[in-house]
Amino acid sequence: MDFNQGEGQNNMNKKGSWLTYRPDIKILDCTIRDGSLMTNGYFDDEIVTGVYNACVEAGVDYMEVGYKGSKKIFSVDEYGAWKFSSEDAIRRIVGDNPGALKLSAMADAERCDYHTDILPKHESVLDLIRVATYIHQIPTALDMIKACHDKGYQTSLNLMAISVVQDSELNEALEILAQSEAEIIYLVDSYGSLYSEEIQELIRRYRSYAEPAGKIIGIHAHNNQQLAYANTVEALILGASYLDCTVGGLGRGAGNCPTELLLGFLKNPRYHLRPILKCLQEHIVPLRQKVTWGYDIPYMLTGQLNHHPREAIKFMNSDNSDDYLSFYDHIME
Amino acid sequence: MDFNQGEGQNNMNKKGSWLTYRPDIKILDCTIRDGSLMTNGYFDDEIVTGVYNACVEAGVDYMEVGYKGSKKIFSVDEYGAWKFSSEDAIRRIVGDNPGALKLSAMADAERCDYHTDILPKHESVLDLIRVATYIHQIPTALDMIKACHDKGYQTSLNLMAISVVQDSELNEALEILAQSEAEIIYLVDSYGSLYSEEIQELIRRYRSYAEPAGKIIGIHAHNNQQLAYANTVEALILGASYLDCTVGGLGRGAGNCPTELLLGFLKNPRYHLRPILKCLQEHIVPLRQKVTWGYDIPYMLTGQLNHHPREAIKFMNSDNSDDYLSFYDHIME
Repeated sequence: MDFNQGEGQNNMNKKGSWLTYRPDIKILDCTIRDGSLMTNGYFDDEIVTGVYNACVEAGVDYMEVGYKGSKKIFSVDEYGAWKFSSEDAIRRIVGDNPGALKLSAMADAERCDYHTDILPKHESVLDLIRVATYIHQIPTALDMIKACHDKGYQTSLNLMAISVVQDSELNEALEILAQSEAEIIYLVDSYGSLYSEEIQELIRRYRSYAEPAGKIIGIHAHNNQQLAYANTVEALILGASYLDCTVGGLGRGAGNCPTELLLGFLKNPRYHLRPILKCLQEHIVPLRQKVTWGYDIPYMLTGQLNHHPREAIKFMNSDNSDDYLSFYDHIME
Repeated sequence: MDFNQGEGQNNMNKKGSWLTYRPDIKILDCTIRDGSLMTNGYFDDEIVTGVYNACVEAGVDYMEVGYKGSKKIFSVDEYGAWKFSSEDAIRRIVGDNPGALKLSAMADAERCDYHTDILPKHESVLDLIRVATYIHQIPTALDMIKACHDKGYQTSLNLMAISVVQDSELNEALEILAQSEAEIIYLVDSYGSLYSEEIQELIRRYRSYAEPAGKIIGIHAHNNQQLAYANTVEALILGASYLDCTVGGLGRGAGNCPTELLLGFLKNPRYHLRPILKCLQEHIVPLRQKVTWGYDIPYMLTGQLNHHPREAIKFMNSDNSDDYLSFYDHIME
């Protein structure tokens, strides 16, 4: 019973199996960046250092330190260091980042003064700039990608909220992205609404546009339906190479694919689980006293309905966050 | 890009897609039965009634009320009603169970006095007896299946701990089970260690033995690696018909596939989510004050290592249950 049938004829099929060692795999830990959505960009240096050291020791490939947010849009009085990820702030944690771990920052389309705030690569410890964009912002995003690429960075384009984009529009977008300077194109399940079969179909589709142009695919999943890890593994098996994850699944709303689950899956001697567990125990679990994240029923419901999680997040921050029925009745109205 | 290729030639491929309505699907809610592993069989009648009413109103196909445990092995002083599931106890909750919901009980091989404690079907409100067995107990299990079948029940055989069974032994077992009176053969991921590709391969294998003998396949998953729901969907897509789940994922250790996630996935007008959410809110969430279940790092580790979860359960009940590192160091020794 060979379920890799057709492998020879169709390169859109599986890349290896769960026991295969795949050198193209890159783990990108975005604990601090995605987590900063929960803390308005504030993290004690001790925590950021803890995550950094864990990534170094665990053999993680990339650590995303935060956003490159515009100070014209976001006030430095209201937001912490990781909303802006200045060179000084990053170097306070990583020094000259001498090891193999690469560093990334995320720049949101239309919310980043990329011409001034993203330095030429030779002046920065950052290696990768990831541009996050909604489909209608793609022209801006492409300009950002080109600017960052020309400054010497590796770049990725993270197209968000695709579960509410029409097939034909998505295809058009992928065709344009395939012609861009972006090295990596990310499949992003912003609403945590995608099922494994949809992930499979989408990864195949992304590859069909990206690979002929020499680009690679990444996956960023959310846990609204307890599928962040499962969908990441699904994408990985079907050929995604860049895998986003966060320690303890820390992240907005239902959170992300947990780094510790992903490392456990990858049979790769480069990676080590223990430093991640240490970081989880010492730095991330204690955060639960201040912020709440992770799978819960309201997130499940917005995921099932393919809605943005904002209503669930608002509900979870209210006083009656365990009154699931009233939330259900509200969103089903 | 058709990834159902070969569908025509190979009936071991997918049954439908995520939007398909499949009349063969049966949802079996085992909240009280699996949950009774956490409570030694004790549940207030109010809770059992709450789950029963929810199953009726939600359109769930089967509710498993508990175990048929031997009173020679388990003391009635130490265990509650749902360790034994006497006819009287069940009727106290369900009366004559007049509706469409069917009822099941689980009988463990070598731990059930099935000749005396399982009544002839016409004297019982139970519809289905599920025999749980380790591979070395199969001769006993087959005798139980035959006895229950002859008494007039629908029967299933749930082969446990297969992730530590050799392929050749499993094939031999499946060949024998295919010749038994069992109507349903369950794939059981006792250790919560199986990945989607293994689930796929196993479902195909189970079907290859069961279907020529006219039998159907069920899936019972555990959430050690946050994959209970994902693996249940995987099994369903590949052709499993009987799907086990519990409200809120209640169950031993990391728990089970949550009924509310599964109902949300199935695009089937028979099923209704709201009664399950009501039950979850009113009866299952409050249980968290007494018992702890659900995904946590120690369960993840035993799942990743393909170990029985007993050590993780013991650790989670200890005073230092958040010292993940010491548990990691202990089981890696």
